[in-house]
Order: sequence, then structure tokens, then C-alpha cells
Amino acid sequence: MSDAGNDILVAYPPVGAARAERLAALPDHVTLTVALDSPEAIAEMARAAASAERIVNVYVELDLGMHRVGVPVIDTAIALARRAREEPSLDFAGIAFYPGHVREAPEDQDAKLAELSATLTGALRKFDAADVSARVVSGGSTPTLWRSHEIEGVTEIRPGTYVYNDRGTAAIGACGWEDCALTVLATVISTAVPGQAVIDTGTKALGREPVRGAPGEGFGMLLEHPEVLVERMSEEHGVLDLSKSSWRPQVGERVRVIPNHVCIVVHLNDVVYGIRGDVLETSWPVAARGRGEPAF
Amino acid sequence: MSDAGNDILVAYPPVGAARAERLAALPDHVTLTVALDSPEAIAEMARAAASAERIVNVYVELDLGMHRVGVPVIDTAIALARRAREEPSLDFAGIAFYPGHVREAPEDQDAKLAELSATLTGALRKFDAADVSARVVSGGSTPTLWRSHEIEGVTEIRPGTYVYNDRGTAAIGACGWEDCALTVLATVISTAVPGQAVIDTGTKALGREPVRGAPGEGFGMLLEHPEVLVERMSEEHGVLDLSKSSWRPQVGERVRVIPNHVCIVVHLNDVVYGIRGDVLETSWPVAARGRGEPAF
Repeated sequence: MSDAGNDILVAYPPVGAARAERLAALPDHVTLTVALDSPEAIAEMARAAASAERIVNVYVELDLGMHRVGVPVIDTAIALARRAREEPSLDFAGIAFYPGHVREAPEDQDAKLAELSATLTGALRKFDAADVSARVVSGGSTPTLWRSHEIEGVTEIRPGTYVYNDRGTAAIGACGWEDCALTVLATVISTAVPGQAVIDTGTKALGREPVRGAPGEGFGMLLEHPEVLVERMSEEHGVLDLSKSSWRPQVGERVRVIPNHVCIVVHLNDVVYGIRGDVLETSWPVAARGRGEPAF
Repeated sequence: MSDAGNDILVAYPPVGAARAERLAALPDHVTLTVALDSPEAIAEMARAAASAERIVNVYVELDLGMHRVGVPVIDTAIALARRAREEPSLDFAGIAFYPGHVREAPEDQDAKLAELSATLTGALRKFDAADVSARVVSGGSTPTLWRSHEIEGVTEIRPGTYVYNDRGTAAIGACGWEDCALTVLATVISTAVPGQAVIDTGTKALGREPVRGAPGEGFGMLLEHPEVLVERMSEEHGVLDLSKSSWRPQVGERVRVIPNHVCIVVHLNDVVYGIRGDVLETSWPVAARGRGEPAF
């Protein structure tokens, strides 16, 4: 969900009456847009919007290669757009996609970006020909951040990770190591087992996120000692492999871990601290975490 | 941390003055025991306990094969026990270990349990000979739950996962599938991509925990359709592989996921709902999640 002033975009199918109603209950001055890929989501959003006497913008989501959500067949997507346009409480605003399958370094994205441009151009022509032209084409991601403008037709991007960046983003060259803004402050709690040190930062603080999908490359890297990785984890223990380092920490020493995937780390913690130099300038509560949809 | 009436056991090294002080500030009627493996932790706990005018029980943690925390060399552990005994505010109460390396099915644990018994017996004899006898020997885990009493010398066990059990525990045969008490309620939010269905339960709800440490075996299993696994995940998406199932869900349909590792799932959610049959009988807030040690 992104909020640019009074515009809120929910790039996630609002399936379930409770979700649709919650969105429709947003203040009137908010321009609400949702991305969806099913007739069920259209019907539920239409009902909730009508009941709240508001108009909700709709993007029809396309699958352009990630194979997660989104309609892979353009004719089916066009049928959804028409269906949305039939609903007085919905306004078909355009199409959305997420190029999550593009995980190459920016300079190696040529082929995939060209393919995206070609597929997207074809899709947009079909939408035009069917008289359901897309006003907005919403795509983009953190790895494609610097090249999304090369995807023909895109008018909006939705990168997220770039706010902090992380080891995974730096590892593919989509940011520099110096751009990793969030680290996890950890304390060395044990050096009893030779060749390793244990920090108080395990899966409950870092998640068990891979780098580039490959296991065995560690779950985080020390900012101060980049040759040291979090090699294995338990829930509250992170085991640092010291075999490639001459650094031998003391129990109680503090280190900063660059996490593999920062989005998960934010979700795992109640507060993010904003530090400049050695000064704590602010702190941000993570308000939207832990919110499984209440089922009852 | 376990709380049996007024006894609290912290089976985690209380490293850092803030941690030791927080523990020492527990009400006087609480009998506090901490497990630790370093002189630094002894010094900090002793200082905090003295300052709070209380006696804290200490277990010296041994590494008996898991190689996470704990002292692998018995003479070093005995030196720590002596060091603890020198502190007027500490009482050396015994030894602790965690047999996290025993992940076999209960019936296949013979060799490792025999090895644990032999190592532990040898260690206890050395502690006796050094005149620092252990009153308590604290070990045990969920996978060894039904056989911990066969480890010679053990007087206390600390299983955790068994409270709910999970796919990982059932997969190694340490519980039955019918013993998995916690599931994650998910909604199917997309069926647009053929051969799969997408639920609103990704890494932020399930974690990315492997079964038996092997990747590629899915991140959860549907209770109602055990042939269907959560095959891949994004933060808020879980992709169900339908290739081994004739079940074809509707968008909006609800399913229950047996998670691979339930401890992580509890940590990821604000509330656990207690349901008997179709009746919501209670709900439990997860109070201690998201608590990174405040650094400032």
C-alpha cells in the first residue's frame, strides 16, 4: 500500500468482504485504487464501494513473467476490465504488473526489459483495440528502479525495498553497500564454541531470507566486518562464522548486521530507530506488523 | 524463558548490563535461574543481582553436540561454576544443555541419546570430583520429548515447540499430524496463473522455515488438502502448488496452513485464537514479540 498525499494504491487483491469494506471505509478525500485479478475481487470491491457511496479506481493485474498473481491471458484481463467498467462504483483506471522475475544486476536486464516492453506494448494495443484503454500502467520494482522508464508504456512504479536497501539488493548490484541504510544491532552473547561467535539475532530478528535464492550464503553480513556472515540461525541465536576473519569478538561486543531482506526485518521489529552519526534522531513505530486479518 | 509458578528460568545468556538489570528487577518472590557460558555474563549477572540484593541461580551451559552456545570443554565449564560460586549474589545450581542436534525420529535416537548419556555422565563426574556438583541438569527438547528421561543425569527438560507442534515436528515423527494444534488461516486471493493458487500468507505470516533443513519441500501444508504445499512465497503471497491435487479452490476460499515451524509463526502474529470445533473460545495476545533490546 502506498500513500502519495490523498492517493492510496493497494497493489494487492482486496479479496474477502472484510478487506473490501475496510478499504471502502477510508476517508472520502482519499482517492483509492486497488489492483485485482479476479471477478470475485471486482464484485466484492464494487459492493463495498457502492455501499460506502464512493468510486474506487481499479487496475487489472497482469502476469508479465513473475507467475505470482495477475492474469497471463490478455483477453481474460480485458474481460475483467470490462466487468469493472460495468460497475457504477468502480472506475477501470489501468493495468498493474510486478516485474519480480527481474533479479539481474541493472546492466544485465536488457533482455528481460525488452521482453517486458514487447509484451506490455502488445497488451496495451489489445486493451486499446477493445476500447478499454489503460490510463495508468503501474509496474517497477527495486531491482528495476533505475531502468523502469525503459519499459515502454509504464507510467507508475512501485519499488519498496529501496527505502532502506539490503544485502540482497546490493548483492545483485541494484544498490551500493553504502546505500544499505538499515542494520540490525546485535550483541555477541557467546564465544564458547571455537571458530564462531553467537549474536542475539536469529530468525526472529532477521528472518531466514536467502541471497539470490541460493542457500548457504548466510543470512546477513556484519557492517563492520563484511567477511563475517551469519552462517546459521536458531530463533534467538545467530552463529557468526569467524573462519574467514581475524576478528575475535568479546562477549558483550555490539555489531551491526546488514540483513539479506530488509522488508522482513522491519516486519519483525516494533520500532525502527533513525540514527545520524552517533545521534538517535528519531524512532518510528512499525504500526502495521503482526496484523493477520481477524477471522472472527 | 519458562515460568513455573514463581520460578523463572532464563535459558539464554544474560549478556549486557541492561538484560541483567531487567532480570534482577523481577519481583522478590520469583526464584530466578539463568543459564550462561561466559565470565562476562557471570560478572554482569552478579553485579545486577548484588545491586538488587537478591540471589540468582546459575546454570553453566555445556555444548553437548549442538555447537551453538555452551562450553565444549568440561574443565572450562568447571572454572565458570567456581567463578559463579565465588559471587555472593549467585548460586551455582547446575548445568544446562540443549540437544538441538538430535532431530531424528524418536525411534532413531538411540545412538545420539547414548552418546549424550556418556558425555553427560563423564561431565557430571568431573563436576563432582571438582567439588562443584550440579544439583540440576537441565536438557531436553521437543524432538527428544518422549525419550529425555533416558539421558542419564537429566533432572529438567525445556521443550517448547510441543505446545502446538508443527509440520517439522510431525515430519520427523516426534508428534502425529493430529497433534498439530496451530494452523494459519489463509484466504485464496488469486487463481489467475494456471496450476497454482495464491494465498494471503507469505513469509510475513509463515516465515521461511525449512522442513528438516532441506529446501524445496515447501513452507507449509494445507490441513484440508495435505497434498498441497506452499511451494514458494513472497512477503504477502504464498503460492500453492496444485499439480498433485484435484482440488481447485475459488478466490475467497479459506484454507488452514500447518506451518513448518510454529515458534516463528507465533512470533509473526499479534494474536493467537483458541478454537474448539467451530467455536472461538479465547484469544491470546502475543505480548513478547517484536522486542528488539532497546539500544538507547
